[in-house]
Amino acid sequence: MSTPFAPLQNDTFLRALRRQPTAYTPVWLMRQAGRYLPEYRATRHRAGSFLGLAKNPDFATEVTLQPLDRYPLDAAILFSDILTVPDAMGLGLYFSEGEGPKFERVLRDEQAVKALRAPDLGSLQYVFDAVTQIRRALGGRVPLIGFSGSPWTLACYMVEGGGSDDYRLVKSMLYQRPDLMHHILRTNAAAVAAYLNAQIEAGAQAVMIFDSWGGTLADGAYQEFSLAYMREVVAQLKREHEGVDIPCIVFTKGGGLWLEQIAAIGAQAVGLDWGVNLADARARVGRQVALQGNLDPAVLFAAPEQIRAEVGKLLQAFGHHDSQSGHVFNLGHGISQFTPPESVTALVEAVHDLSAGYHAAA
Amino acid sequence: MSTPFAPLQNDTFLRALRRQPTAYTPVWLMRQAGRYLPEYRATRHRAGSFLGLAKNPDFATEVTLQPLDRYPLDAAILFSDILTVPDAMGLGLYFSEGEGPKFERVLRDEQAVKALRAPDLGSLQYVFDAVTQIRRALGGRVPLIGFSGSPWTLACYMVEGGGSDDYRLVKSMLYQRPDLMHHILRTNAAAVAAYLNAQIEAGAQAVMIFDSWGGTLADGAYQEFSLAYMREVVAQLKREHEGVDIPCIVFTKGGGLWLEQIAAIGAQAVGLDWGVNLADARARVGRQVALQGNLDPAVLFAAPEQIRAEVGKLLQAFGHHDSQSGHVFNLGHGISQFTPPESVTALVEAVHDLSAGYHAAA
Repeated sequence: MSTPFAPLQNDTFLRALRRQPTAYTPVWLMRQAGRYLPEYRATRHRAGSFLGLAKNPDFATEVTLQPLDRYPLDAAILFSDILTVPDAMGLGLYFSEGEGPKFERVLRDEQAVKALRAPDLGSLQYVFDAVTQIRRALGGRVPLIGFSGSPWTLACYMVEGGGSDDYRLVKSMLYQRPDLMHHILRTNAAAVAAYLNAQIEAGAQAVMIFDSWGGTLADGAYQEFSLAYMREVVAQLKREHEGVDIPCIVFTKGGGLWLEQIAAIGAQAVGLDWGVNLADARARVGRQVALQGNLDPAVLFAAPEQIRAEVGKLLQAFGHHDSQSGHVFNLGHGISQFTPPESVTALVEAVHDLSAGYHAAA
Repeated sequence: MSTPFAPLQNDTFLRALRRQPTAYTPVWLMRQAGRYLPEYRATRHRAGSFLGLAKNPDFATEVTLQPLDRYPLDAAILFSDILTVPDAMGLGLYFSEGEGPKFERVLRDEQAVKALRAPDLGSLQYVFDAVTQIRRALGGRVPLIGFSGSPWTLACYMVEGGGSDDYRLVKSMLYQRPDLMHHILRTNAAAVAAYLNAQIEAGAQAVMIFDSWGGTLADGAYQEFSLAYMREVVAQLKREHEGVDIPCIVFTKGGGLWLEQIAAIGAQAVGLDWGVNLADARARVGRQVALQGNLDPAVLFAAPEQIRAEVGKLLQAFGHHDSQSGHVFNLGHGISQFTPPESVTALVEAVHDLSAGYHAAA
């Protein structure tokens, strides 16, 4: 089949997700286009606000490419907000200075929950336009990752109305009115699947589901209220587009205890936070899925030689690659806004240099 | 040997920690003396401030006993603050309204770290006085638990100067200057061991080490910077006092992945947060240590019958007791200030009622 986009020059990231041989371990960073980069801050200043940046495909394209111009990263990720879907459901996303995202309307009672509808994908066209424009601007340098929040993570924001320390309101609903919680999650799962498929059609070459708050759930509740709905999303995703397979990465922060269960929902790769021992993770599920992660972002506050040493430890923990293994180097969480940009130079260089020895000659 | 205190009437909690047969599963709640109780709020109002409450043995005794007067709990825990030790090291603990604990002086450079000294235990006499006074006031109703923060958890506050979202400053020191971090942790470990031993001499019948922030560390860093120092503390603890053994519980919130390693440091029991499956935890370490936990505190926002159902699930997950098992029912974290007091009634009743069937007849 034909594609309107330039041919891919560096497919290391996609090959690692497929657990195919690569010459080295590919690396990208969650939130790699972000506030730690002065050029990002300059663009955001021009955009006037975070939403002004995220909702404008020109700006989104500009910031998505910024880290690639600085560092030889092996993938780009769509610059967007995790809460675009509930915003398109009419909840009214806004940002209050220093407090992060908020919703004007929240889901706290039966009436509000039952009124929830799948979003009109047309109202998310700015995201799909950004995907296409970024893919074009990349010109085949590296693959483009699309993403969404998980149904549970979106629900946390939709019920709490913003971030939370204790998830009291959303967990109260979960335990008091599981029927309402499931109604929200079913709606979210359908919306997330449609949203990711539209990103794939617009040009995303892999997709990632961020379950940022699944790790706050109790064992049992996690499986019922987060994992089950990620499985629903994964089952509905397009497996290929224009003749090329589209790998999916699922990432539950704090989900290391449930790794086997996460690896079994049908995604091609599982993201790991830094609490997980990478050798153990490989032994547990590394023949079923590729693994992505898992450096503590705080390592990037250290000097280059210490960053290199910590990278070396993780590569050694994963060990030598075989015909069933795949590893994408990443942080275990988004990069901190306080990271010195030169730390990322040291990180990417260390991953590329030190990993080659763990891969059989191509 | 003789003891100045009344004989213990309910030793179910201590027997469970020793993995001896009990008629039912004992229960207590982390932060059971706290803001969710109107009588606690009244005492705190009289005390004028949190530190006025925590540093006065009369008030501390009063609030420690309040939950026992309401509920048939199986243990009392010293009411105190987790940061008494660094306060006694001269860091100047204070509370700013709505922001939690803060230190006037913080450890951010070599000079401050190297000036750190073990505290004069005399400046913590108010804690030991409270222990003795509470033990007397209990009159043998249930055992009294003493406690301390872990060396790492105390270090987080001592470097950050208060709570933190990302532990950026303390982790920066850990990765940049591990020598300074180890200096703080060695000092803390010696102080914590002396502090807990003085609590034991004052009348504490069990002790618990709260490693609230160990779970924020990367695999590898956790073992080196938190677990190793808890092992040091445990090794220095008095094993018995006045002819009675003193069990120790260690609890790393978010430490479920490291359960085998935590169970091997010499403590009699390991606390679990709600992310851990209790059946798995028992299979992994339940023949080496007693387990404590692990209900999500958010369950207490649900109706009594839902609380009972969730308690039932946990008891069933632990399963029938045998000659090597011990389980102390608890939450996986401190009880929320927003908990309706009647939820605790339902919880304690459910644990006592439903657990009897899992214990062999005495």
